[in-house]
Amino acid sequence: MKEEKSQLQSRLERGAKTTKEVVYRGKVITVRKELFKIDDQLPHHYDIILHPGAVGIIPVNEKGNLLLVKQWRRAIEKITLEIPAGTLEENEEPLECAKRELQEETGFKGEMFISLGGFYVAPSYCTEYLHLFIAKELSASPLPPDEHELIDVVEISLEEALKMVYEHKIEDAKTVAGILHYKYYEESKK
Amino acid sequence: MKEEKSQLQSRLERGAKTTKEVVYRGKVITVRKELFKIDDQLPHHYDIILHPGAVGIIPVNEKGNLLLVKQWRRAIEKITLEIPAGTLEENEEPLECAKRELQEETGFKGEMFISLGGFYVAPSYCTEYLHLFIAKELSASPLPPDEHELIDVVEISLEEALKMVYEHKIEDAKTVAGILHYKYYEESKK
Repeated sequence: MKEEKSQLQSRLERGAKTTKEVVYRGKVITVRKELFKIDDQLPHHYDIILHPGAVGIIPVNEKGNLLLVKQWRRAIEKITLEIPAGTLEENEEPLECAKRELQEETGFKGEMFISLGGFYVAPSYCTEYLHLFIAKELSASPLPPDEHELIDVVEISLEEALKMVYEHKIEDAKTVAGILHYKYYEESKK
Repeated sequence: MKEEKSQLQSRLERGAKTTKEVVYRGKVITVRKELFKIDDQLPHHYDIILHPGAVGIIPVNEKGNLLLVKQWRRAIEKITLEIPAGTLEENEEPLECAKRELQEETGFKGEMFISLGGFYVAPSYCTEYLHLFIAKELSASPLPPDEHELIDVVEISLEEALKMVYEHKIEDAKTVAGILHYKYYEESKK
């Protein structure tokens, strides 16, 4: 919907000035401070997280069950149940990233990947777009685990996953959104 | 699942050291850099976005249609269609925030709010938890618009919203996840 900016926003931005300044360069993210000023009003302050983008994978095994990953999340100080996911490396295609992250996090390789599009994780302040894939035709192919992460793989059916969403046992937005996309994909094949 | 940390992570964190440093204080977010070091390995670097939390509202009118908001998103440079949402102010209860944001963004007050739990927006690097509500018994009660935002309200049925998710016309994770929760809520009443 990018082309519609002129209709919705142009009268607001006419005469407006924006200044942008990088205030922090981290390992994955960069933080940019923006001041947006219309006429003689006080400037409005936005902090924007620049993120390289990510992938999320819904691995489906030969029984039709999903493989989710259970791990300690440092930021929120909780264990979560999520779809396997990871950040795009420099110049990495989303499909390549999906293949790599699936293997790193679950120990399985996928022969068949199906794109389900994707979504913005927090479009009000973060540029991260997550590309969503289904992975099928899985075979065991473990990699040495990352020394600073401990991940357990959990196999559950789609029905169990939906139940855990509704019971708030799955509380990760990309996983909830990913399960909805996968459910539709399965229904559309019937 | 917080209590399970010891089982999954304790052997990893035994002997590990973490240093934490605030590297940026923004308007809403704060960025904290953490270095996590096990034994004599090189430290692992995490950047964590501290966020006060947010609410998302699914407003349902007397026809059973949803009110979504269409707006220009500066971070991603796109127009999005999202559920109304906003950030918790200091010491603000999620329900109060939901009432305020609904009125500010849609011009409607809700008489009835139903909690649907919530989710973490990006648990790998951000503390934001979004509290999700249904709002019903709506009545027009516009507030003066925020001078730096232009928001259009769009009324659509649940079926249309689901179609827009599957066609990737709705690409906001909280909106996709919120629609799945709402669909279940509606089905569970039947």
